Amino acid sequence: MPKMPVPFGDDVSGVELSKGHVAVLKTDMLVGKTDVPKGMSFWQAARKAIVMNVSDFAAKGVQPIAALVSLGIPADFTTENVAEIAGGLNAGARQYGAYVIGGDTGESNDLIISISLFGTATKKDLMLRNGARPGDIVAVTGFFGKTAAGLHLFLDRDAASSDLQEILLSSICTPQARLKEGIALSKTHAVTSSIDSSDGLAWCLHEISRMSNVGVLISSLPVAEEVVRFAEFNNLDAEELALYGGEEYELVVTVKPKEWVNAETACESAGGQLLPIGKVMRDPQVILDIDGCKKPIEPHGYEHFKTTV
Amino acid sequence: MPKMPVPFGDDVSGVELSKGHVAVLKTDMLVGKTDVPKGMSFWQAARKAIVMNVSDFAAKGVQPIAALVSLGIPADFTTENVAEIAGGLNAGARQYGAYVIGGDTGESNDLIISISLFGTATKKDLMLRNGARPGDIVAVTGFFGKTAAGLHLFLDRDAASSDLQEILLSSICTPQARLKEGIALSKTHAVTSSIDSSDGLAWCLHEISRMSNVGVLISSLPVAEEVVRFAEFNNLDAEELALYGGEEYELVVTVKPKEWVNAETACESAGGQLLPIGKVMRDPQVILDIDGCKKPIEPHGYEHFKTTV
Repeated sequence: MPKMPVPFGDDVSGVELSKGHVAVLKTDMLVGKTDVPKGMSFWQAARKAIVMNVSDFAAKGVQPIAALVSLGIPADFTTENVAEIAGGLNAGARQYGAYVIGGDTGESNDLIISISLFGTATKKDLMLRNGARPGDIVAVTGFFGKTAAGLHLFLDRDAASSDLQEILLSSICTPQARLKEGIALSKTHAVTSSIDSSDGLAWCLHEISRMSNVGVLISSLPVAEEVVRFAEFNNLDAEELALYGGEEYELVVTVKPKEWVNAETACESAGGQLLPIGKVMRDPQVILDIDGCKKPIEPHGYEHFKTTV
Repeated sequence: MPKMPVPFGDDVSGVELSKGHVAVLKTDMLVGKTDVPKGMSFWQAARKAIVMNVSDFAAKGVQPIAALVSLGIPADFTTENVAEIAGGLNAGARQYGAYVIGGDTGESNDLIISISLFGTATKKDLMLRNGARPGDIVAVTGFFGKTAAGLHLFLDRDAASSDLQEILLSSICTPQARLKEGIALSKTHAVTSSIDSSDGLAWCLHEISRMSNVGVLISSLPVAEEVVRFAEFNNLDAEELALYGGEEYELVVTVKPKEWVNAETACESAGGQLLPIGKVMRDPQVILDIDGCKKPIEPHGYEHFKTTV
């Protein structure tokens, strides 16, 4: 077995190149049926396939260099469809400073876009999932719930004003990875654990708890203001949308309390934000504690929107 | 754009790590519908997905270190099916000295196994597709046509004795990559161009011709003896089976004439063989010339066995 500078089950995989120097690898696949709701263009789907993978690099603080693409294309796709996919792939890669340098295309029943991403890192700069310690501050790079609300719009035709619709749908169709924030955070060495939130906020908190053998107490839930409005209008639970959604590409990190200002400043200098939402606890539970009202956060993962689309 | 130590369109992609040192990357996807004929087990399909990628590394002379796997699993697959797939992936990786170090699983309509393979190489040892020069000897690491004949058995129920059936079907179900031969050849620096034959012998010869801007004259077609027997019995053309098949994982190389013995010896020391089949020509045509009877070799690619399976 080669030396594993990144443990199994983290956001990315790693191979030691030389002492302290690591090749960082990730592969993740976008499948039409489960990852591309109706209304999302092929360009957007292809770009999203890149963003999904870049977000995992962001969570580790690693700059992606090169992407390889394996495409499975249904027989009825036109040359224009394929050109649109190529355009989305390149746009996504270039936005995050990477290049598509190779790949293969074959025929498949459903659209399949499998990306593999490569970069290198200094081992000590890698932010892993397993370093959270009691007392650390739990923080996120943004507000949650917009993609879950957006899926309600897409699938259940819930109502929203047109400006709200645009914000919610763009969170699904043109997601943004927090690469600048992740790289800036990794340089501070203030972060003790980090994960990308693509499986949903609740799931990520449980992952940090499990991988670091600690608990998490959330005292301020980062619900997007648009989600609060949307939930009120449609009689939905905004907390649920923020906790148990998914396909959101924020970073969820734990920060050494003494280094908080450094971490926050790094994110702001990178053009982002870092929002404290709770604390790491010794007791390995994941709890929501709002104004003294405690309830467990369930380990629900994000579930793809399946064949109901 | 990062420095590209391996040109677009070669068997693998490369990223320069430091001067003369290259990260080698490959991603290729196995799709149930087109790559897994009925009668092939999930274990065999998964192992084949690894072999497909290892063979590209073999053609460049690069030892694979780590594999990442993205699995798309149909909803009706059982836990046993998935365990069988995991077993086949690991068996394939271990056979060639690599480890599966990460991956993701999702749901898809059809079985999808996307592999990405990582290794490192010294740039000057990489065997590319584009270095063939007039006068070089064209050579292959084995005989051709068995998978094409095996597909006739699978699909058209052509007849063969049971020992012949076993040989032909095993060429499909448990293909072998020529990794030892490829690595041994790369160390000789006798090879001027190299390609893996998964798209069929004819296609590979055209690729070498196109990428190196030369022609190829084949004077001895490496038809497997079993294919000659099978073709005679079923009234098929053995030459066609050898030239226009595919999913065979031999290496097709061009060798400096003065270095021929070194190259041949390297392959034999690695447990394999190197068979001279023709010469590189200045005139950019791909010609079969058997006993003075010349005919063009067509640029037919391997066509997957499609939905007729």
